Amino acid sequence: MPENSASTLPAAALPAPRDGIAGAAPYGAPQLEVEHALNVNENPYGPSAELAEAIGRAASEAATGLNRYPDREALGLRADLGAYLAVESGISAPAPEAVWAANGSNEIMHQLLLAYGGPGRTALGFTPHYSMYPEYARDTYTDWVTAERGPAPEFELTADVVTAAITAHRPSIVVLTSPNNPTGTALALDVVAAAATALAETRGLLVVDEAYSEFRRDGVPSALTLLEQHPNIVITRTMSKAFALAGARLGYLVADPAIVDTVRVVRLPYHLSAVTQAVARAALAHRDELLGKVALLRSERDALAQHLVERGHSVAPSDANFILFRTFSDRDAVFEALLDRSVLVRAVGPAGWLRVSIGTPENNAAFRTALEEADPR
Amino acid sequence: MPENSASTLPAAALPAPRDGIAGAAPYGAPQLEVEHALNVNENPYGPSAELAEAIGRAASEAATGLNRYPDREALGLRADLGAYLAVESGISAPAPEAVWAANGSNEIMHQLLLAYGGPGRTALGFTPHYSMYPEYARDTYTDWVTAERGPAPEFELTADVVTAAITAHRPSIVVLTSPNNPTGTALALDVVAAAATALAETRGLLVVDEAYSEFRRDGVPSALTLLEQHPNIVITRTMSKAFALAGARLGYLVADPAIVDTVRVVRLPYHLSAVTQAVARAALAHRDELLGKVALLRSERDALAQHLVERGHSVAPSDANFILFRTFSDRDAVFEALLDRSVLVRAVGPAGWLRVSIGTPENNAAFRTALEEADPR
Repeated sequence: MPENSASTLPAAALPAPRDGIAGAAPYGAPQLEVEHALNVNENPYGPSAELAEAIGRAASEAATGLNRYPDREALGLRADLGAYLAVESGISAPAPEAVWAANGSNEIMHQLLLAYGGPGRTALGFTPHYSMYPEYARDTYTDWVTAERGPAPEFELTADVVTAAITAHRPSIVVLTSPNNPTGTALALDVVAAAATALAETRGLLVVDEAYSEFRRDGVPSALTLLEQHPNIVITRTMSKAFALAGARLGYLVADPAIVDTVRVVRLPYHLSAVTQAVARAALAHRDELLGKVALLRSERDALAQHLVERGHSVAPSDANFILFRTFSDRDAVFEALLDRSVLVRAVGPAGWLRVSIGTPENNAAFRTALEEADPR
Repeated sequence: MPENSASTLPAAALPAPRDGIAGAAPYGAPQLEVEHALNVNENPYGPSAELAEAIGRAASEAATGLNRYPDREALGLRADLGAYLAVESGISAPAPEAVWAANGSNEIMHQLLLAYGGPGRTALGFTPHYSMYPEYARDTYTDWVTAERGPAPEFELTADVVTAAITAHRPSIVVLTSPNNPTGTALALDVVAAAATALAETRGLLVVDEAYSEFRRDGVPSALTLLEQHPNIVITRTMSKAFALAGARLGYLVADPAIVDTVRVVRLPYHLSAVTQAVARAALAHRDELLGKVALLRSERDALAQHLVERGHSVAPSDANFILFRTFSDRDAVFEALLDRSVLVRAVGPAGWLRVSIGTPENNAAFRTALEEADPR
């Protein structure tokens, strides 16, 4: 399907979209069938046959009541997510009222910007950042402003830079991403705490996007531990990455219950299907299996980063399941040459850099081999 | 869970929601466990054991690939929906590019208002209307204006009223609902055509919400037949009602591919999970079973309407799976007296009226009996 599947009619015969929409392209990486898909930070390990069967059973049980609307509050799922976070991060389990779930982090972020952004309000991020953030802002009429992370290859973000940007822009929302996409950089807690403190003065919201948190290296903290002291922090998470559940669309957040209540005002009623709730709960019940692959992916990541450094690339230190590295030659040429060898990566981040997701050992080996030819030293 | 689950913190310690959100209550009918739930227009018939199993199989198959993002375009599902509409309404099957699907009609409507509404733009509806419409408008910063339908009990909407309101308000979007919720009133095609013609002058969008279309009486048309002549019409449908799939969240629209393309710009990427796509396709493959109950629900509706008329109530003629009727005494007292007898209905529509969903023959008999005591002549 072409990006714009061309009506046969002239624009004047059709309704007029709002400003900024007409002719724009939908967001998204190309959906290509390739042997080594290392472009969208998916987990390469699908559920086991046992889990797939358990998911089928959960869906089948949910199906008998599908004529009824789902539980609008999804309280069972929210309790399970809270219990998981307690195990994962060593915090006390957040109450269900402090957890909220939606169709992917996308919908979580959209709801947050809908509730706390809007016309006349500003959201602040730090470049290079996840490419969807400006779209959340556009679709909620929030101004999107940015400040810069430190220089490559560390792409560090310091408390001073964050605080200065907050003072300069007085945003209603700040988005910090840890580990950051596309750089893989995790944040020190003092940076997050400084942002929360600076924002508290103007009653701003601090969103810490921890989509890739489970992949962080030993000793690297989650901002979950800051929630109690800083009630203006929201931590967002997803089951897409560590839980290998990108296809099921389950994002969630943890925050003070008052923030959850505010999000509930703007959520579409019954936004989370009964099947989605059941599938996510089945996956959480199998978390040992799903998270078991995380350790392997982390060690594969560290080995690949080392390999790229040894080849002489600039490599951003990564706490995520991907690596951003600088190519020797033109990145678009390298991208195409990799694709010619059945390896699909992503051309994001600063000019000259490519992002590769961590796949299976076989995927990663294929990437190494292809890179030898696609981007010779 | 209370409507607002009370943070322990003072508001000043928390981030400030945008205007119009703070303190508002989330939308939704009370979620009560009662024997006869006739309040949210659900289909009382759940999937058969065979279909529940087929849905489980579909989910299980989808599960093996859940580590990957779903098909962003959902082209298989969109083709199946087009094929269904051809059978249901006798039109040529719309191409997949002319169909779009999302998590319930709620998300479909939100996407349409996001693409064609916005600050400085106006959407027009006709009272009494579905209570979510103003929320879609609020969440997309679109002005929501209304004109009135004709007097009870017909609640008729004429081409003259619609055209005059369009001329007065010059809206970017008009929402016509057929059959209308909460009145059950279907629209004559000349009304829809007149609205489309009037709107074409200002390149406005006409949304015809046909959520309840499958329940319409013999000889009552769908606006699908008008699409070819009027490229500014969008027809929205749902699998929640006739397909008895409210829990699965699947709404869809049919329109010119240029309108679908515009919606694709504002949709959240991967908004529709792989499981949702698989479940909806399984249900469409079993449509004979699911739609088989529609005939029974229609005849139960006609019998109940007749009964209410014979009792002396004012009754809005209904082409949907619910009936709006006027109570003899205070509607809130009648509502509570019905609830005391395990019958839950909905207090919506003009003051003095109640809406009852059509349930199983047993549900409907229980409602009749309870009404004798709850609202004596």
